[in-house]
Amino acid sequence: MTPGSAALGHVRDRVDRALQAFATQQRGVLLAAGDDLRPGAESIAGLLAGGKRLRPAFCYWGWRGAGGPDCPEIINAAAALELLHAGALIHDDLMDASDTRRGQPSLHRQFEARHAGHGWHGSAGAFGMGMAILLGDLLICWTDEMFHTSGLPTDALRRGRPVLDRMRTEVFAGQYLDLLGQAAGDETVAGALRVVEFKTAKYTIERPLHLGAALAGAGAAPAGPDGGPPAGGAVAGDGARAGDGALAGDGALDRGGALAGGDGSLAAAYTAYGLPLGIAFQLRDDILGVFGDPAQTGKPAGDDVREGKRTVLLAVARSRATAGQARVIDRYLGDPLLDEAGTAKIRAAIAGTGAVAECERMITRHVSEAIAALDGAPITAEAREALAELAVAATARDG
Amino acid sequence: MTPGSAALGHVRDRVDRALQAFATQQRGVLLAAGDDLRPGAESIAGLLAGGKRLRPAFCYWGWRGAGGPDCPEIINAAAALELLHAGALIHDDLMDASDTRRGQPSLHRQFEARHAGHGWHGSAGAFGMGMAILLGDLLICWTDEMFHTSGLPTDALRRGRPVLDRMRTEVFAGQYLDLLGQAAGDETVAGALRVVEFKTAKYTIERPLHLGAALAGAGAAPAGPDGGPPAGGAVAGDGARAGDGALAGDGALDRGGALAGGDGSLAAAYTAYGLPLGIAFQLRDDILGVFGDPAQTGKPAGDDVREGKRTVLLAVARSRATAGQARVIDRYLGDPLLDEAGTAKIRAAIAGTGAVAECERMITRHVSEAIAALDGAPITAEAREALAELAVAATARDG
Repeated sequence: MTPGSAALGHVRDRVDRALQAFATQQRGVLLAAGDDLRPGAESIAGLLAGGKRLRPAFCYWGWRGAGGPDCPEIINAAAALELLHAGALIHDDLMDASDTRRGQPSLHRQFEARHAGHGWHGSAGAFGMGMAILLGDLLICWTDEMFHTSGLPTDALRRGRPVLDRMRTEVFAGQYLDLLGQAAGDETVAGALRVVEFKTAKYTIERPLHLGAALAGAGAAPAGPDGGPPAGGAVAGDGARAGDGALAGDGALDRGGALAGGDGSLAAAYTAYGLPLGIAFQLRDDILGVFGDPAQTGKPAGDDVREGKRTVLLAVARSRATAGQARVIDRYLGDPLLDEAGTAKIRAAIAGTGAVAECERMITRHVSEAIAALDGAPITAEAREALAELAVAATARDG
Repeated sequence: MTPGSAALGHVRDRVDRALQAFATQQRGVLLAAGDDLRPGAESIAGLLAGGKRLRPAFCYWGWRGAGGPDCPEIINAAAALELLHAGALIHDDLMDASDTRRGQPSLHRQFEARHAGHGWHGSAGAFGMGMAILLGDLLICWTDEMFHTSGLPTDALRRGRPVLDRMRTEVFAGQYLDLLGQAAGDETVAGALRVVEFKTAKYTIERPLHLGAALAGAGAAPAGPDGGPPAGGAVAGDGARAGDGALAGDGALDRGGALAGGDGSLAAAYTAYGLPLGIAFQLRDDILGVFGDPAQTGKPAGDDVREGKRTVLLAVARSRATAGQARVIDRYLGDPLLDEAGTAKIRAAIAGTGAVAECERMITRHVSEAIAALDGAPITAEAREALAELAVAATARDG
């Protein structure tokens, strides 16, 4: 197994299979309540069939880096993060009124169409919204179920729980800050970066790595490429957790096990890698959201503009815009009727400010910083190589 | 401690305190992400301050009935169910477009008003919806966190997890069936009862009891009033689970521990008590939703009628209605502008069908059936008395 296939494709395929098995099992539970739950089970299975599996990949390599062995159990536990993500995406699409997800109609639109097609009572929109809320809730709850039935030892799960808990609170807090900033008209780069820290950097990269590390065991010494067995029993209290400033001042969660499994230097290394990489990842997403090819993003061209998303790219553009460029941005940002001509105009205005070039420089700088953090990290050589590769893959121009 | 105070007030006060402590801890986590999360933390604290704590009470007495001792840890674990419930209520109010909850504005209305008050950008309704989705998600996730940090032994938590998992899948499945039935115009009593089974009877009573039993340990012998210590290690596989038909055909979840802790007769007794009581509880709620006093229900008069809720009461009324009565029901049910005169008319029509009297008879019959099921149940005497008292209290006319 080369690190190349291991870092992405190999993990992804196994995560896909684990999710498929879990979805099939849950479909049985749903259909036992009623055959009319079939469309819900099918929509969930369809949504779970897609995705890059970035969060599971970081969780898996967080585990491997800490010396955990390659095994099906860690794939199951890592795949559970994809259920949380799918549930959050359903709710996100509803909040953003997005029509598409992964090249398919978004879940609320699927059920809206179902309602309209059957000529049912009441509002099709309200029906779609209700179904999206409920199926999103279901997926969010299933995260815990898949995590706890992963087959990992109970002690490992106990060590992982505080990280999973914190990760979820952070992502919803980040979304809250995003929604609030959007409403309150916070257009600063600093405001946008704070949202990115919680909503993307911690959620997508840092916490999945910490979760893998915690599952692999506190203070697990870096092992060779094949790793050792997961440390089943050791739980070390660790008050330091250097480099993880966001956790400072909160002692309550540490009682059940330190957030990254007790190895402060390992957790700090994952943070030093994860936070800048998370920012770079979001910046790439920001650029693709405005300039990306629909065939590649699975979203209509200019969708982020139409939704009026308050991104770092936009904040940088505003901070550099001439009065004329600012007028074009204000005119088209958040316009639900944005057409091809409008998309072209706002693209030109944003690019004209130099914001795209500036964000590309930020991406390069942050990716370099992330990869440099791997140098002295107390992790296995294989994980170091895989994480370096993931850093490049997650921020590549071709998405 | 008399069973009287123990069954309700005493458990409720301790659950209140446990929730307050948890909310205070989580408030710290949220404020670490940003001081602008304060309104979210406050809305959550406000919502968590109210409620009858029925689900925690049934979980607690399920534990005590199985011989578990009175201790703070079971109060914490039982209180976690209230977080799930609060999250589900936030989402429910959003789906039903309800203006009030527990005498206060519903959460989406609170944030709508906040948006309007500040004159923020975009739609106040969309902002309220987004915040309600996110804060509901947060509470649903916190269920697991409070459960796992309850202080109960790891083995007990491991036994409880499959019950908690199943309970959540069932409640969201029940809500899905409710929404679907409402849209598709299923007005049958059988359809309404199936929704009640999943959305109320299992969720509010049967599963909380099973959870308490599972936490207390597989095959725990009924103990005296003071109980014994929780059985920490024993997990018995139990394929039978007589009386729990809804679980038939699903072997996957049983591998991790039987759903009610392995004591088939105890689980069956809780089912035999919980399902009829759950139906009676919902029927009382149906009647209060149409005829209740706002001071008592915390909802405007006739709110269920205004929302067009498809209840068992309504299904019974339809099945007995004359053409004239049916016209009045059709005229006012789901009318968002329903006023006092309209409320009086539809009340008279429903009562005129004899549906209220019929539902009162069903309540009496189901409560009797539930209490009779306690007779031979292998539970402690104290729990038997408390559960009999809870059955009466949960279905009383004064709510």
